[in-house]
Amino acid sequence: MNRLEPVDPAKLAPLKVALLGCGVVGSQVARVITEQAEDLTNRIGCRLELVGIAVRNLDRDFGGLDPELFTDDAKALVSRDDLDIVIEVVGGIEPTRELVLTAIDHGASIVTANKALLAQDGEALFTAAESRGVDLYFEAAVAGAIPIVRPLRESLVGDEITTVMGIVNGTTNYILDQMTTTGADFDDALAEAQRLGYAEADPTADVEGYDAAAKAAIMATLAFHTRVRGADVYREGITSVTSNDIVLARKLGCVVKMLAVLKTDVQGAVSVRVHPALVPSSHPLASVGGAYNAIFVESRDAGRLMFMGPGAGGSPTASAVMGDLVTVARNRVRGVAGPGESVYAQRAMTPMGEVETRYLVRINVVDEPGVLAAAAAIFANHNVSVQTVDQSPAVARDGEDEEIAVLAMMTHQARESDLQAVVRELEERSFTRGTVEVLRVEGK
Amino acid sequence: MNRLEPVDPAKLAPLKVALLGCGVVGSQVARVITEQAEDLTNRIGCRLELVGIAVRNLDRDFGGLDPELFTDDAKALVSRDDLDIVIEVVGGIEPTRELVLTAIDHGASIVTANKALLAQDGEALFTAAESRGVDLYFEAAVAGAIPIVRPLRESLVGDEITTVMGIVNGTTNYILDQMTTTGADFDDALAEAQRLGYAEADPTADVEGYDAAAKAAIMATLAFHTRVRGADVYREGITSVTSNDIVLARKLGCVVKMLAVLKTDVQGAVSVRVHPALVPSSHPLASVGGAYNAIFVESRDAGRLMFMGPGAGGSPTASAVMGDLVTVARNRVRGVAGPGESVYAQRAMTPMGEVETRYLVRINVVDEPGVLAAAAAIFANHNVSVQTVDQSPAVARDGEDEEIAVLAMMTHQARESDLQAVVRELEERSFTRGTVEVLRVEGK
Repeated sequence: MNRLEPVDPAKLAPLKVALLGCGVVGSQVARVITEQAEDLTNRIGCRLELVGIAVRNLDRDFGGLDPELFTDDAKALVSRDDLDIVIEVVGGIEPTRELVLTAIDHGASIVTANKALLAQDGEALFTAAESRGVDLYFEAAVAGAIPIVRPLRESLVGDEITTVMGIVNGTTNYILDQMTTTGADFDDALAEAQRLGYAEADPTADVEGYDAAAKAAIMATLAFHTRVRGADVYREGITSVTSNDIVLARKLGCVVKMLAVLKTDVQGAVSVRVHPALVPSSHPLASVGGAYNAIFVESRDAGRLMFMGPGAGGSPTASAVMGDLVTVARNRVRGVAGPGESVYAQRAMTPMGEVETRYLVRINVVDEPGVLAAAAAIFANHNVSVQTVDQSPAVARDGEDEEIAVLAMMTHQARESDLQAVVRELEERSFTRGTVEVLRVEGK
Repeated sequence: MNRLEPVDPAKLAPLKVALLGCGVVGSQVARVITEQAEDLTNRIGCRLELVGIAVRNLDRDFGGLDPELFTDDAKALVSRDDLDIVIEVVGGIEPTRELVLTAIDHGASIVTANKALLAQDGEALFTAAESRGVDLYFEAAVAGAIPIVRPLRESLVGDEITTVMGIVNGTTNYILDQMTTTGADFDDALAEAQRLGYAEADPTADVEGYDAAAKAAIMATLAFHTRVRGADVYREGITSVTSNDIVLARKLGCVVKMLAVLKTDVQGAVSVRVHPALVPSSHPLASVGGAYNAIFVESRDAGRLMFMGPGAGGSPTASAVMGDLVTVARNRVRGVAGPGESVYAQRAMTPMGEVETRYLVRINVVDEPGVLAAAAAIFANHNVSVQTVDQSPAVARDGEDEEIAVLAMMTHQARESDLQAVVRELEERSFTRGTVEVLRVEGK
């Protein structure tokens, strides 16, 4: 260990920073780097020099930034030999992966917000960064402004995390919140979200759960010290959630939330899933509204921690990028890199069929004697124990001469494969009308 | 930057770790180091070797740990030249400060939980650590298991924090929670807390707010990049909170909480205060029960973040210590230290008299015509605008022939010095019986 003398930041050569992407997040990052230069220099111990901003199309608004910085040749930018840090906020898999690997190969540290890329190809990127001796930081990839990556990666690294559960996608939380508070159906709530900028023109990544699954994979890899990829995550979006589900949830004292649920079992195997779920109204997650995110972490020594904050948006995401930027810059000044990944545990992944949780099963049935008993017998035959039953008349449709009832059964803890067997058998029965709807129940 | 090859942890010499203190926290730390050795080795990249545990008295239960490790000569232990890390969980100012400085001087990195020492003498310790090139980490000093130091120190370091507000002392939160839920008065609630181990035999540090003030000073120093000492913090404990206050708070739709409030103003000056306060029942802080802590952080880009979790206790505090231990150990393995302090900002401290907030003022007055008008006039004369007034008869006492009324006035935002002037004038008036009680109101 050396005795260190304080160095005047002005005497050091500035750190050269390249920015890939200048959209909602990138433009805010560029603004902060420019406008907060003095504070940043003081905090880092060295100046930052933004040397290039790669964008798709140079025919654009430069937003007050120096037009000379902009280039549409991202490959040339990351191939420079003099970059200290590359900030990647353009997203997507290709050509972004190639650009990041090129930057690493040329000795630049990386700050990224790219959950999809990390969930799919994190291993290759971390390996490249570690062997090249550069940093790869990614707080902005999960839960926007909420510091969750750093706590999982560094604060809880002396502890044993057993459960992570949370709301990590602002778009779906906003949509479900709208459906809950206004009674809107999914399509109308999605349209409203798009109108307000909470959902993309193509909302697939959010509403089909790909975004949440990528974030869940990243968090699971950190929390359980074992490689989990996006493809390993059981994924179910919210496109099948109806206003009937919302009404039924309220009747049962719950709300519908899009959750990421990450658990280890006593043998140390890991299950990771994202799907809509009923959550009791009294649960702290139930009150997380709009585009906010919230994450519960349970561990051996710390007990139960909760983190909450804005999960998306230009400024919140930029906050996370800037925190990583300062950290990585401080490392560059001292000629070091932070610790790399810790993925030694090689835990087994629990197949979804083996996962145990609680379920709400809703079916339309002909309202005749014996139907309830028959339905209940199916549950019993598959070892699924029912906790509560709610039966009420369905809204009659024109031309229908049958009396239809809606049966809602909430189960105790049950195994997924058993529950799916119940569903298949119910759907085969002559008393069932339409399909069987299932929502998992968490936090109860 | 070097290209790094992975190193087999077993081939490296273990890192030598000394533990100062083996109480509730220290014993859990020692247990985790011993029982989780394999996981820790994998996460650090090197083994840890606990080489000594300094305690006050060797005539004690060794709790399953190797008795050979124990010593009552802490000074000799920290004077060794071969220590990598010293964990300080003994607390207090002296001789702890001397021990920590000695350890630093001999080249050991420090992990501490000592909020009192850091709030009083942080500057000297950080300066010593930085010039010696060793780490000084202190997550366990603030808010138990909740990662708050690391987010303030590293995650939000590219952002501009404007407000930090929270419950950071589990003892006082437990006592006030008891008073609220059971109607107990302060003395009985304190006795119950002591019985259950939530309060010390000598509870002064907690109930008089010294503990909260030290934590507030540490958080303010991190959040605002400026030196704030414990003595700079306006401090008021909870010993004057009565069950009348609790009842009145409920009547006004609030609860009484012991808060730390840290703010910057538009000129960048800083105010830091700890005191009991009314908080609206709908505010998230209002539902933080028992010995839990919760901290709100508001910043320019991130918006509003909340962190919540166990604020005290052996295992929660040990979790924070272990996170720092692994981080510091990883640094030692790579021959580096983390960034030191960032306290360049030299902000002015706002005197308490200039602080603005809302107030609940409660006085007993003779129930006679003109008293309310006279009281209201005093507020007006000192520029304190009243939002709501509640007047009700006081409970009559034996032998009293006067009719006494309780006047409760909630103000709009007002300046502390103006409010104190109002209080002094009210106390001088002949219509006032007893003293004037004041509770600040936050989050409304």
